[in-house]
Amino acid sequence: PSPGAFAGRTMATVMEICIDSVESARAAETAGAARVELCSALSEGGLTPSLGMVRAVLSATSLPVFLMLRPRGGDFCYTDDEFQVMKHDLAAFRAAASSRDSSSLGFVVGMLLPDGSVDKPRLAELLALCGDHPTTFHRAFDMASSWRQALADVIDLGFSRILTSGQDANCLEGAPVLAAMIQEAAGRITIVPGGGITESNIERIITQTGACEFHCSARESVASDMVFRKGGISMSAGYFPSEFSLKRASASRAQTILAAAAAAAAGPQ
Amino acid sequence: PSPGAFAGRTMATVMEICIDSVESARAAETAGAARVELCSALSEGGLTPSLGMVRAVLSATSLPVFLMLRPRGGDFCYTDDEFQVMKHDLAAFRAAASSRDSSSLGFVVGMLLPDGSVDKPRLAELLALCGDHPTTFHRAFDMASSWRQALADVIDLGFSRILTSGQDANCLEGAPVLAAMIQEAAGRITIVPGGGITESNIERIITQTGACEFHCSARESVASDMVFRKGGISMSAGYFPSEFSLKRASASRAQTILAAAAAAAAGPQ
Amino acid sequence: PSPGAFAGRTMATVMEICIDSVESARAAETAGAARVELCSALSEGGLTPSLGMVRAVLSATSLPVFLMLRPRGGDFCYTDDEFQVMKHDLAAFRAAASSRDSSSLGFVVGMLLPDGSVDKPRLAELLALCGDHPTTFHRAFDMASSWRQALADVIDLGFSRILTSGQDANCLEGAPVLAAMIQEAAGRITIVPGGGITESNIERIITQTGACEFHCSARESVASDMVFRKGGISMSAGYFPSEFSLKRASASRAQTILAAAAAAAAGPQ
Amino acid sequence: PSPGAFAGRTMATVMEICIDSVESARAAETAGAARVELCSALSEGGLTPSLGMVRAVLSATSLPVFLMLRPRGGDFCYTDDEFQVMKHDLAAFRAAASSRDSSSLGFVVGMLLPDGSVDKPRLAELLALCGDHPTTFHRAFDMASSWRQALADVIDLGFSRILTSGQDANCLEGAPVLAAMIQEAAGRITIVPGGGITESNIERIITQTGACEFHCSARESVASDMVFRKGGISMSAGYFPSEFSLKRASASRAQTILAAAAAAAAGPQ
Repeated sequence: PSPGAFAGRTMATVMEICIDSVESARAAETAGAARVELCSALSEGGLTPSLGMVRAVLSATSLPVFLMLRPRGGDFCYTDDEFQVMKHDLAAFRAAASSRDSSSLGFVVGMLLPDGSVDKPRLAELLALCGDHPTTFHRAFDMASSWRQALADVIDLGFSRILTSGQDANCLEGAPVLAAMIQEAAGRITIVPGGGITESNIERIITQTGACEFHCSARESVASDMVFRKGGISMSAGYFPSEFSLKRASASRAQTILAAAAAAAAGPQ
Repeated sequence: PSPGAFAGRTMATVMEICIDSVESARAAETAGAARVELCSALSEGGLTPSLGMVRAVLSATSLPVFLMLRPRGGDFCYTDDEFQVMKHDLAAFRAAASSRDSSSLGFVVGMLLPDGSVDKPRLAELLALCGDHPTTFHRAFDMASSWRQALADVIDLGFSRILTSGQDANCLEGAPVLAAMIQEAAGRITIVPGGGITESNIERIITQTGACEFHCSARESVASDMVFRKGGISMSAGYFPSEFSLKRASASRAQTILAAAAAAAAGPQ
Repeated sequence: PSPGAFAGRTMATVMEICIDSVESARAAETAGAARVELCSALSEGGLTPSLGMVRAVLSATSLPVFLMLRPRGGDFCYTDDEFQVMKHDLAAFRAAASSRDSSSLGFVVGMLLPDGSVDKPRLAELLALCGDHPTTFHRAFDMASSWRQALADVIDLGFSRILTSGQDANCLEGAPVLAAMIQEAAGRITIVPGGGITESNIERIITQTGACEFHCSARESVASDMVFRKGGISMSAGYFPSEFSLKRASASRAQTILAAAAAAAAGPQ
Repeated sequence: PSPGAFAGRTMATVMEICIDSVESARAAETAGAARVELCSALSEGGLTPSLGMVRAVLSATSLPVFLMLRPRGGDFCYTDDEFQVMKHDLAAFRAAASSRDSSSLGFVVGMLLPDGSVDKPRLAELLALCGDHPTTFHRAFDMASSWRQALADVIDLGFSRILTSGQDANCLEGAPVLAAMIQEAAGRITIVPGGGITESNIERIITQTGACEFHCSARESVASDMVFRKGGISMSAGYFPSEFSLKRASASRAQTILAAAAAAAAGPQ
């Protein structure tokens, strides 16, 4: 579809917020998010959270919580040891959330084979362990060699959703491919655009892709509480701006984004 | 003490390796490490690992395993929610490792107040929950406003060890301060130099500081198994070199480092 | 204007390529670029080139060459010393290119005051020194406090063009603002979109903004000629991927981009 | 020599400061530097400065000024076009500084062949064009395959000095190799340690290497003059902390470093 093809169609909009703290979970709920995706280390694109963080977030919010299963940063081609870790974590998470309805607890995972195809055998094994809980195939999808084949495989496996930027640097760049993915999916699975969504581009992304759900972090920088700030030392191997700035979801940013999405979905009056 | 002051004194050397995978745990054991420190996200300086990773590492090695309690990157001044997460994780880790001797399971933590002093009340509470397990105050120490006061406080609290780079960018830069810390500690606590230790500087660090233990990652870059490599997309907010390179502990690097340390500790023949 | 407002209007497309080497100048000419913008240190967004580089590029191409006047990276608020350096460079460049027609040599500059407004007094002085040569106000424009006021001031000063990403991270993000700028300019000055333009977004940028000119680097990574590659050392203070990879303009990338732009400008058949 | 071998020997200390602005040139003179090395883009390790900057710095200081000849970042293996640019720049610099004594104007260059050896033919040609002016072989030396062979070649070519970190990440790491280089040079050429020198390590570097000269930038961060600070836009391809922070040489930092070096050179009282 050409840009703007979906302008004016009435669509519901569902906002998912990815978080790595209890504070961000609360902000997501305040802002009207439909669900949260809980990770640790969003700086690495999101890793498996600690069990303590899972417990604290489950207590802090009644929103559906989707839990990331990703044992390390980098690619999505895992060793047997890493696959074992993922199964251990899944079991621990299900046990810790046993009082939750299956629909209010989900899992987020993605695995590829060296040739860039979806690792169907191991994902089938993992999805069986997820029981009735909804599942999202995450942005490993954007590293797949063929999105059409990967889409067919992910539908086949029974995933509920795919989180994707349209195999591009972010959703605005990938909007034409996202639109094509949504058309190809034809309702068999939910395509959730995610990656680089902000208040200034969400309207265009909804209008250009026809997406009914989207994923963002809605984060803002929060100054450290430290008054004494020692310079010249960094704990990080990467190159982060500062030890003295955090990022947390902002309820007001999230609300602004959601309102813009809803306006785009409703179309011109 | 002046540089080289400890050359020729016979000292035992104990190598701790920080890891974030099962493969690195095995490499550490092969190399003769005395213990491992298990984290996730070493790129952020190490965060609390997932319970699945803890279980897998405890199964894979008989080495003492020290578990990081750090709920996010950035500073070491925590909210009540974050403190709660740390206590949840500690409890889950103790339960998962209940069959281990207390000496073969340890915890690694650090908390500061906004003025750069050690957060004694909360650490006292946390250490009580650690029971008989050994505890390390991690590199939050390097962000403290006064290392002498922080050292006194950490000893007071009953920690077993302090992991530190001498309040500098790395241990070679901080060697004079590390030497002063070890002298000031006078055996009341073990000072473990850590940060930037390699095979080419470990001899100097041992000789210049008189340390009997040290901490390193002994990592090497490992090429991704992916044959299909999509460009133009990064999962990371930071600026990592590549999705297609991992870092894992190398047994041979670790052995080289340990041998160099032992030679320095034994002194000239 | 709404996205796609300009689809189907027949517009000429003029491609400017920013370069920092003789090789890239040749690639630009091969690809059909209308002009080049010569800088050093594109990694810092482009600085004043050395006189030797200017001479070599003037010899290597008959394309119009626009020369960057930016004495350092960072903001666009200059000291008197820095302003003096810019005037020295301008004089040296005019002397070195005295045999060129005024239309085939241009200058690129931008200066702001601390409040984010255009530094009109100093720019007026500088433009007087540019004589009949065309002048571009560069992406300092994107850091201005009000683009409407800045646009009026830059037109007033007599600049030929403005290079801008629509005050956003890149041109695709800034497309709505770029469209508004072009409408507001109403032909009084040429608005040249630049920043993040690639073969996969140029059609959308042309269609959504109605721009008749655009600016890109069309670069590709070129492997270093070094066979011996020493690791562990970097000359850079920033965090560049490697000493062993260069970036140069690619004639084939540039051709692809230009063809896509021309197709968008011509509109649907 | 072992660490500390040179403690107590009386040596003169000569401080060279690398700069990329007129302000830093003045700070270097105030601090008692013996000479400055003028570059642009220190963020890339230093590139050839613009002629306007050269003129301004020559006017601003009576210190000897050494001019960088490096046409781009990355490796030190140059195309014929790049070599031509270097010769053009050298000629322009000599013409612009024709009133200076040859001893108060120097050139800084380094060229390697793909196998990591010194590019003797092209450097011989370039050095002939330098006439009586002193010449420094820069940190390309640290990327050479064999420092012993490279040292012999650079002496052979007739360079006055070598700027080096001991083929390591910085001078403190490379101190043992620097000491070996100085011993091997045996006065036939001046070895100038440079790379990562600060007030807290200069004493050790002097004492451990026996160097009589050293090179540093003595920079401090200077806040931008901009009051209006637009976020979300960066001009840089790399990952610099901010558009709103500059780095300039600090006279007081430079004085502190020089005093520490002098104390180390004088040895214990």
